[in-house]
Amino acid sequence: MADTVHPSLASGRGSGAPERPWGNRPTMKDVAARAGVGLKTVSRVVNGEPGVTADTERRVQEAIEALGFRRNDSARVLRKGRTASVGLVLEDLADPFYGPLSRAVEEVARAHGALLINGSSAEDPEREQELALALCARRVDGLIVIPAGHDHRYLEPEIRAGVATVFVDRPAGLIDADTVLSDSFGGARAGTAHLIAHGHRRIGFVGDRPRIHTAAERLRGYRAAMADAGLPVGPSWVSLGPTAPERVRDAVRAMLTGPEPVTAVLAGNNRVTVTAVRVLAGPRAAAGTGREHPVALVGFDDLDLADLLGITVVAQDARALGRTAAEQLFRRLDGAGGEPVRVTLATELIPRGSGEIPPPAGTA
Amino acid sequence: MADTVHPSLASGRGSGAPERPWGNRPTMKDVAARAGVGLKTVSRVVNGEPGVTADTERRVQEAIEALGFRRNDSARVLRKGRTASVGLVLEDLADPFYGPLSRAVEEVARAHGALLINGSSAEDPEREQELALALCARRVDGLIVIPAGHDHRYLEPEIRAGVATVFVDRPAGLIDADTVLSDSFGGARAGTAHLIAHGHRRIGFVGDRPRIHTAAERLRGYRAAMADAGLPVGPSWVSLGPTAPERVRDAVRAMLTGPEPVTAVLAGNNRVTVTAVRVLAGPRAAAGTGREHPVALVGFDDLDLADLLGITVVAQDARALGRTAAEQLFRRLDGAGGEPVRVTLATELIPRGSGEIPPPAGTA
Repeated sequence: MADTVHPSLASGRGSGAPERPWGNRPTMKDVAARAGVGLKTVSRVVNGEPGVTADTERRVQEAIEALGFRRNDSARVLRKGRTASVGLVLEDLADPFYGPLSRAVEEVARAHGALLINGSSAEDPEREQELALALCARRVDGLIVIPAGHDHRYLEPEIRAGVATVFVDRPAGLIDADTVLSDSFGGARAGTAHLIAHGHRRIGFVGDRPRIHTAAERLRGYRAAMADAGLPVGPSWVSLGPTAPERVRDAVRAMLTGPEPVTAVLAGNNRVTVTAVRVLAGPRAAAGTGREHPVALVGFDDLDLADLLGITVVAQDARALGRTAAEQLFRRLDGAGGEPVRVTLATELIPRGSGEIPPPAGTA
Repeated sequence: MADTVHPSLASGRGSGAPERPWGNRPTMKDVAARAGVGLKTVSRVVNGEPGVTADTERRVQEAIEALGFRRNDSARVLRKGRTASVGLVLEDLADPFYGPLSRAVEEVARAHGALLINGSSAEDPEREQELALALCARRVDGLIVIPAGHDHRYLEPEIRAGVATVFVDRPAGLIDADTVLSDSFGGARAGTAHLIAHGHRRIGFVGDRPRIHTAAERLRGYRAAMADAGLPVGPSWVSLGPTAPERVRDAVRAMLTGPEPVTAVLAGNNRVTVTAVRVLAGPRAAAGTGREHPVALVGFDDLDLADLLGITVVAQDARALGRTAAEQLFRRLDGAGGEPVRVTLATELIPRGSGEIPPPAGTA
């Protein structure tokens, strides 16, 4: 455990970059330069250690005041013998998509000697804010957020105070921040194009609530692929809303039984896919909807056992999302400057059978 | 956020129980009684608030010294405007079994106004200890541990200092502590008996490493059911070890191809089940093993989509495990006394087809 302020966290935000939007705070290096002393001397004064003359201490204190340097609380935590820490605000601890993502963040944090602290917002913007600020109050060194809300200005004081912050899976709202996303638009477009390539013309999209960025992007990708192929989107072919099984089941059934029934479905996320598979592949699926021909399905997000069920999916790499976000966070904590970056990771279409079912004769 | 020491956490460990193994620390109530003042007065002195005469403050300080009262650091954290917190040491953040468990702990913590802090040990006892102590150093009010190791004496100083501790999924080693378990023994016995009831005599068991309590208990349940039915256990029918797919695949194949090939398999946990399903239900499964008759399978732990694949399982209630452990933790934090308790939750056998496949004719 660190016995004194850890240079990489306490003073590692080098003074090279004059403007850094995520925390333009003077560092111990700045104090040392202004006071004309070494870094170790500043560290002694800040940590209340002996070995500094009264005159030198006065000069350091004057530099601290002149620059508005305020001691990093994270560093104080480190000095007390606690480990550094990174906070992770998840959407839902119980969603299997976030398991590998969390694990990847933890592995990167661990490689940097930091503890991961996490919790979930349950898709509630207020709870997200409460959790993020509680983590900041506990002096996390950095924060990785899967946002539920669309206004992250509440984090601006924390970011200015030096809490490195990276958004993952969904972008930040109303602030500029490092962001790591999957290509939801491109993935949904490719999944839809795949169904079109297999002869489908009437394709439904069932997604999460449209205020969720990934849901909106996937809808946009679906519409783009339909437009690319010159296909109209029927009025009953798009259904967005909560991913509770009942809602999804009703939505899928409605698409299959309307005046223009779809012959294929793009499921907007893992929870939608699980329910859609149950509706489409269940033993009495056809009986329940009057169908005689199997309906094609492409799911967004891979699932355990999806290979055995032959479910074609657009897979995101949840582990890479977590790892990339965490690595960006530690680059910032290690002093990396520059404008906020946005990284978009590609998705992968994995054909397994359900997405290659052709439409019934006469519908193409 | 609490502005002063929260009575339920700082002083709620009532002085009613003279001996409490998980922390016999004098409370603010004890200090108040000895000094002959009210609790609020002690709180004012401890928190450095005004409104106490010098004489009263002296009496309180004397009582604090006489009793060896030491201010609860968690309480100090609360006073700084931070929320209370509970630490959760998981085995693997990416294991879907722990998702609902974590979520349930979080819901209970949230209902008590506390933050959940978690991390995973990756089945490494040293990492478990490092993580648990790092959480204690961050002044969690309580700790829920899914242990990887078998010696938890390292937690004794923390428990004595008042950190409420509950073990879940697996018991504590070499210390007495509140524990919440699933009935692994009974579940494995029932799963094996189910296969026996469907005519099987040669049944294999593939489990996790035997040093893991649940793996050992499930093996014991399997052996008990075989003994109950007067059946021998062939030398090649039990395979314990890491749950990596390659190891499990080889283990299942070896059981199916030995001199006394099994006709049914009990899979010891969710990860074993996923691989066993792939080996037994894959398109070339029979070809790869020279089998012509399907092999029966009962899995331990339920899986998403297991219903669609017709996988019979012994299901644990992961959510109930987490909720029960967290509720016990908060009972302790609210001052509940008494000896450590051990709660065992029942498992449920869910027949879906794979466990009801009869053995080939002539093997019974």
